[in-house]
Amino acid sequence: MRLPRQNLRTPGPTPIPNDIVEAMSEPMINHRGPEFLDLITESTRLLKQVFMTQNDVFVLTSSGTGSLEAALVNTLSPGDKVLGVSAGAFGDRFCDIADAYYADLKRIEVEWGEPIDPEVIRRELREDPGIKAVMITHNETSTGVTHDLESIADIAKNEFGKLILVDAVSSLGCIPLPVDGWNCDMVGTASQKGFMIPPGLAFISVSDDAWEANRTSTMPRFYFDVAEAKKYLESGQTPWTPNLSAIYGLRLALDKMMDEGVENIFARHHDIAQYTRDAVEDLGLELFCTDPARASDTVTAIKMPENIDGSRLMNIMRTEEDVVLAGGQGKLVGHIFRIGHLGWVSREDIEEVVEALKRTLPRVGFSAS
Amino acid sequence: MRLPRQNLRTPGPTPIPNDIVEAMSEPMINHRGPEFLDLITESTRLLKQVFMTQNDVFVLTSSGTGSLEAALVNTLSPGDKVLGVSAGAFGDRFCDIADAYYADLKRIEVEWGEPIDPEVIRRELREDPGIKAVMITHNETSTGVTHDLESIADIAKNEFGKLILVDAVSSLGCIPLPVDGWNCDMVGTASQKGFMIPPGLAFISVSDDAWEANRTSTMPRFYFDVAEAKKYLESGQTPWTPNLSAIYGLRLALDKMMDEGVENIFARHHDIAQYTRDAVEDLGLELFCTDPARASDTVTAIKMPENIDGSRLMNIMRTEEDVVLAGGQGKLVGHIFRIGHLGWVSREDIEEVVEALKRTLPRVGFSAS
Repeated sequence: MRLPRQNLRTPGPTPIPNDIVEAMSEPMINHRGPEFLDLITESTRLLKQVFMTQNDVFVLTSSGTGSLEAALVNTLSPGDKVLGVSAGAFGDRFCDIADAYYADLKRIEVEWGEPIDPEVIRRELREDPGIKAVMITHNETSTGVTHDLESIADIAKNEFGKLILVDAVSSLGCIPLPVDGWNCDMVGTASQKGFMIPPGLAFISVSDDAWEANRTSTMPRFYFDVAEAKKYLESGQTPWTPNLSAIYGLRLALDKMMDEGVENIFARHHDIAQYTRDAVEDLGLELFCTDPARASDTVTAIKMPENIDGSRLMNIMRTEEDVVLAGGQGKLVGHIFRIGHLGWVSREDIEEVVEALKRTLPRVGFSAS
Repeated sequence: MRLPRQNLRTPGPTPIPNDIVEAMSEPMINHRGPEFLDLITESTRLLKQVFMTQNDVFVLTSSGTGSLEAALVNTLSPGDKVLGVSAGAFGDRFCDIADAYYADLKRIEVEWGEPIDPEVIRRELREDPGIKAVMITHNETSTGVTHDLESIADIAKNEFGKLILVDAVSSLGCIPLPVDGWNCDMVGTASQKGFMIPPGLAFISVSDDAWEANRTSTMPRFYFDVAEAKKYLESGQTPWTPNLSAIYGLRLALDKMMDEGVENIFARHHDIAQYTRDAVEDLGLELFCTDPARASDTVTAIKMPENIDGSRLMNIMRTEEDVVLAGGQGKLVGHIFRIGHLGWVSREDIEEVVEALKRTLPRVGFSAS
């Protein structure tokens, strides 16, 4: 099997730098031995710097969705009232997990492509003092919208004293999310986004308030039990056999992130995202996000122009231009396409995409009006 | 970071062949695109051959423990009576998952190091017709004992019509486990054992009877929901972002396993295991498994000789002989040590271990009586 070298612009998986690929080729070790102790201890210490937190942080062997399940099942009990936001496929997924674990979910419906108004959260929390936790997708990958987590957390946590559970899968390590600064209780993210390694690991931070909730939480949990993770981490282990290769990659990725500096990483993501937005608008395309101030710095969602064959556009881009774009998800299939610009990404990567779009759009019948 | 080249004889993680390491270095792809469709479709087809089943088989991004959780939560409801076997750390873990998800668990206690007598299963099932499922660890990695799954499944399934849920983490792909031949309902295993790839993937098979149970099962599940996995697999995808690198490795590993032939793989494991048992007994050491006919062909557990410093033995073996042995788990810490011989293993690998033991045992005060 030889896979093509592509300009992979899905919002995860993202390309892996060569030195990280090489690090991942290191031989297997005993995950209950001294080499692993060093590896997980140092990786966890550096992860906390990317999370900007003094909270506990754990490495889970799962996709990012596992960290969202972990956020819920470790803090809540069946029947607990939680507030969720349906503003895209991933907001829906977070809500669906709460449903699956028999939480009493109030799902706020927001038009896909729009950010949620934090005022709505305030109103809901005022109306129902019984709500225990607010779940929020920081960056909604499916619509290219970054919700105003800072304001939402401030309302939920500081005004109302609720738990705030954050899906930070496509934001953390790319755009600012100071976990302690914003007082977030459970924050889950994944390896294949900002961390420049393949899918297969998730990371989650757990605040003191989350630990307090954990003590009385009765949702069933085993694989994603963070109390078990904490117990093992004290002796430099994970409860279950960890994904060693990905952790080898993570260890180096964290060094590289420290070398670049998190503030510089955020600035790079913002600059590239702004370049992307400007360039696609120059092409005569329209952004899907309704609020320019909340357009995502990790993925740009673009309305599929009417009267063109969207799947032909994606196909030509992939097979002739070696540029892999992401389509729409859920009810957005066929209505948008997306350009990921997160993790190991440079402005040149996006310039290539723009040039390829310039060549391809006219071939599928698009002309800028 | 440069990790040492060791003769890694933990019963997972196991060494990775170089060509598989190389396959895992392939670039990332869109997991919702055509290349992944080919990859997962073909991998699943070949996995079924290793499972010797026509049942559905799914690839999960988790450790093996995730597949055990999946076996339970997809077939049972809280309060369902299940029969579990505590005969080692992994039997206990399977029982603990049932407890965590509020099953009504009957835990049969078996002396660690002994196989369970299938007659005990028959008696328990006769005594309590309300039992819905039998959970069994095929190969108990912590004690080096292979339970008689064939007889247990025959009793549970064919005599009593119960669900049989199997932990095959350290058996499948190494020793015979014909899933259809033995009529097993849910069988979970993991990547870092027989499959010659790193930890990070689990595989699970689901029988028609398991699907039938799934329809009325109310245990909460999301990440490990096999019905969701089935829906996505129909379009060549996984519900959540999969561990691509490990799946690249798996694809090649399955080709290699097909080339060797599963019967030849079983024979190789048996021969090497028999050589290991004979050789350690020749050294004057004693096997921990009480029944020679049920000693594991994937891991040999050896009683730590009295009056020697066990941790010094393990340390010298690791630091001076580059041989990594596994210690005891749970209540066996300090009482046994273990030699893994599964996956990519040859007789020469074990000969090295034996030679190293010959040099090291006298240094820690052991003399064969």
